[in-house]
Amino acid sequence: MATAPDETRPASPHPILDEAAQDLLFREARTANSFTAEPVTDEQVRAIYELVKWGPTAMNSQPLRLVLVRSAGARERLLPLMSEGNRAKTASAPLTLIVAADGDFHEHLPATFPHRADARESLAAHPGRERIAHFNASIQLGYLILGIRALGLAAGPMAGFDAVGVKKEFLGDTNQEPVAVVNIGRPGPDAWFQRNPRLDYEQVVTTI
Amino acid sequence: MATAPDETRPASPHPILDEAAQDLLFREARTANSFTAEPVTDEQVRAIYELVKWGPTAMNSQPLRLVLVRSAGARERLLPLMSEGNRAKTASAPLTLIVAADGDFHEHLPATFPHRADARESLAAHPGRERIAHFNASIQLGYLILGIRALGLAAGPMAGFDAVGVKKEFLGDTNQEPVAVVNIGRPGPDAWFQRNPRLDYEQVVTTI
Repeated sequence: MATAPDETRPASPHPILDEAAQDLLFREARTANSFTAEPVTDEQVRAIYELVKWGPTAMNSQPLRLVLVRSAGARERLLPLMSEGNRAKTASAPLTLIVAADGDFHEHLPATFPHRADARESLAAHPGRERIAHFNASIQLGYLILGIRALGLAAGPMAGFDAVGVKKEFLGDTNQEPVAVVNIGRPGPDAWFQRNPRLDYEQVVTTI
Repeated sequence: MATAPDETRPASPHPILDEAAQDLLFREARTANSFTAEPVTDEQVRAIYELVKWGPTAMNSQPLRLVLVRSAGARERLLPLMSEGNRAKTASAPLTLIVAADGDFHEHLPATFPHRADARESLAAHPGRERIAHFNASIQLGYLILGIRALGLAAGPMAGFDAVGVKKEFLGDTNQEPVAVVNIGRPGPDAWFQRNPRLDYEQVVTTI
């Protein structure tokens, strides 16, 4: 190992995300409101999932589920369920994801949380299980939005849709509930609104 | 601009997050269960906030609020409110954040969502406002966990605590509700449990 780079230039013990990566994920990334026709492939979605799956969830519950709305027929069923202001942008997106929370996430706990032998049974009887699913899927939605950006794509997350209709039309035979709908693709013409201001540190953080 | 690097090596039109950054945020990052005594400064917390504040929320609502539990007295009030399994790790953390959702986020909408003049009034009367706050603060919690890692620190997010007690003890005079408690610092001895498995792509994603 005489030529190992850490002998001449020791790695920082605490690397931080470089500026370009900070820009890519946070500062220069924007919610896209129009998209080009360039397809988003299953391989790209798989790469996003294989990255964001590592983000932590309570009890490793991982309740996030994704429905890729790809076929013309499925897209036609989704569009009227979107709020009017979200229809044109959804129609322009090469791919739209329904992000759902699986209220039956506990069925996976014997595999995903093996050191707590009673986890599945105790969650099966837990009246707050769907709330836990929604909470953790929402955290994972945060990871997902950044993961889409990490792979060089633009995300267009939307909360404005008919949740009862999306549940019935797309998740009817499951215990999943829709959390958000997310367009994904390359930004198209006039993709961005003017950036809205963020709250100041002092408005958000208190120290005690 | 004859020496501009893009004449010899054009930048990719779609940059992606490099492998080291993917490792830092997702693949090699782990939930820490013990911490060194190295302090986490207000400047570090500010740097984290100034990064993650850019993550998108519905209506730019930004309901995330943070209480930095710094003083010995505040730490002593928090510890008995944590689940038993979370007390030792919280006691070992140089800094603990209470992550809350502000049900009164709508008061900021005239500044943060200025193009919708009626946003504050329509949300003031909205029976689902606290639910919207919790949902968007949870998405922001996802950004926050990755932002802590982006700044080279380890996060220890916890859902196991007495939410009623934390609300009463730390958020009593606000319309904020606790969402999570997050330890933050440098990982200490035996900081990691064995990594639990993640669900396969096929278990999470369906295409229609």
